[in-house]
Amino acid sequence: MTKYKMIIDTDPGVDDALAIAFAAQHPDIELLGLTTVYGNVSVEQSTKNAGYLLDLLDIKHVPVAKGEAVPSVQKPHPFPDFVHGKNGFGDVKVTYPADFQPVAEHAADFIVRVINEHPGEVILVPVGPLANIALALKKDPTIAQKVKQVVIMGGAAHVAGNVSPAAEANIWNDPHAAQKVFEAPWPIVMVGLDVTYQTIMPSEPMARIAAASPKVGGFLQKICAFYANFYRNVAGFNGFSLHDPATVMYVTNPELFTTVRGQVEVVKEGAGAGKTFFAPEGKVYAESYWSERDNVQVCTDVDEAGVLALIEQVLSTAK
Amino acid sequence: MTKYKMIIDTDPGVDDALAIAFAAQHPDIELLGLTTVYGNVSVEQSTKNAGYLLDLLDIKHVPVAKGEAVPSVQKPHPFPDFVHGKNGFGDVKVTYPADFQPVAEHAADFIVRVINEHPGEVILVPVGPLANIALALKKDPTIAQKVKQVVIMGGAAHVAGNVSPAAEANIWNDPHAAQKVFEAPWPIVMVGLDVTYQTIMPSEPMARIAAASPKVGGFLQKICAFYANFYRNVAGFNGFSLHDPATVMYVTNPELFTTVRGQVEVVKEGAGAGKTFFAPEGKVYAESYWSERDNVQVCTDVDEAGVLALIEQVLSTAK
Repeated sequence: MTKYKMIIDTDPGVDDALAIAFAAQHPDIELLGLTTVYGNVSVEQSTKNAGYLLDLLDIKHVPVAKGEAVPSVQKPHPFPDFVHGKNGFGDVKVTYPADFQPVAEHAADFIVRVINEHPGEVILVPVGPLANIALALKKDPTIAQKVKQVVIMGGAAHVAGNVSPAAEANIWNDPHAAQKVFEAPWPIVMVGLDVTYQTIMPSEPMARIAAASPKVGGFLQKICAFYANFYRNVAGFNGFSLHDPATVMYVTNPELFTTVRGQVEVVKEGAGAGKTFFAPEGKVYAESYWSERDNVQVCTDVDEAGVLALIEQVLSTAK
Repeated sequence: MTKYKMIIDTDPGVDDALAIAFAAQHPDIELLGLTTVYGNVSVEQSTKNAGYLLDLLDIKHVPVAKGEAVPSVQKPHPFPDFVHGKNGFGDVKVTYPADFQPVAEHAADFIVRVINEHPGEVILVPVGPLANIALALKKDPTIAQKVKQVVIMGGAAHVAGNVSPAAEANIWNDPHAAQKVFEAPWPIVMVGLDVTYQTIMPSEPMARIAAASPKVGGFLQKICAFYANFYRNVAGFNGFSLHDPATVMYVTNPELFTTVRGQVEVVKEGAGAGKTFFAPEGKVYAESYWSERDNVQVCTDVDEAGVLALIEQVLSTAK
């Protein structure tokens, strides 16, 4: 059976940890590497956290390439420690493995090299700000023709943002990079707030995962407590949003999602900075540039029960 | 009984004609004047059309003040003759009254003077691009404290635009003016696509209005045919949107609408030009400037059956 050859570009981050654990445990995913970026925490912290997760998940053969520390153009926003904790793991204290080192290659170079080594095979899954991805495209624009698919956690097409009425956090953290990524001629799936705010994980399945998998599931349950608290207090959710794991799940189980093809444009500055406007294919507008591309499949709906069952099933297998 | 002292700033326009007819026929509305602007047609054409409507509606005492011909900052967009026809009346041929003249005063000066003459009483109802309103504010910022209410047809808070994925046409036709208007310290009601795409007039009530009122209703039915054709072909609606009349109806029957108070910011340039982002009061965002104002009540829902019944009732009284 063909495996999904995947690079996850990530800023762990609580839901990043769930996404990486899902990818590590899923029998059909071959994790070619993790590339790290600032976002939920600094790139130093996200890289350390990636190393911790490889150790926890017993996949220390997977390389980690450290990437960008700041946005491509704009000044950085403060890290959202009220969402992911100061350490990105909901302020749960962890002992980092002493022997972990990221590879010498920069994340963008790693992405370029690995895509070129496996033409037509690599699925790139960015779940943080898009600084590394835009840089990789700049270094080698031909990766757009060589990647299999780019499945992005980010954006909000038909719903309000989470950091502003306009913007979802990943896009807002580097809108200039995001525009470069969305306008490149590669096939993109946008897994944004339209669906990730419809995938809310309550405490019960998380407790069952922890019971089935004390080491991995137990750790994930602990770090999720802080994150769930944020969602309870700010969004009023009974549970937390599976932003990043839902994005990885799109790769293995696209049938859980409804998508609409079209063009995405990112607002780079001002009141709308970080907004992902979406023009569905075939819709005619007075502004003619809204029919220039149809390279993005925007997820507009999701089978929440299916997503919850899938994550519980896969994470429960962790040793 | 206190009448609603109203100025309608307008670019007739098919639905503008319905709105003006509604205001003329409603016993509780005292129409202090029409101010005209470019938008659906040129300001020359919209002014002529305003004169025609006063004659048709037998309210030739109402002054018409001609206003801006182009947007305040950006270059003008082409007139949407595929929506309102080349003449703004769905290309129905009309004989314009020979004796009509707009007043010598510019629309913005008219607005400033009339609001100052009736402090606390004037309801300003802009149903076109906001160029005149921004200019009036610039000429006399104190009108913000003297107007009773500004009820605007424009914008799209929670839904996609109609001229782009971002923008509703009136705001898109002068986003710079719109931002000036939304940030002024006066009480605004935004009647945007969120509700006007929920007020769709089918042909049957329009036919009954024409039967009850052959002269006025008959004319309105004729000009609406072109407009309904656009909505059928482009939006897939069985009927046409009551954008402008719904806005006037908010004044007399606010109970037909659900509103949420908050802050509106307009995107002035780029892919999102004309978007009205909305931050509901009390909602906390990472971007702090989203809690600076709460001067806008955004209409988020509407009783469509109530709106349809009301417009039929009022227009059917026209002689």
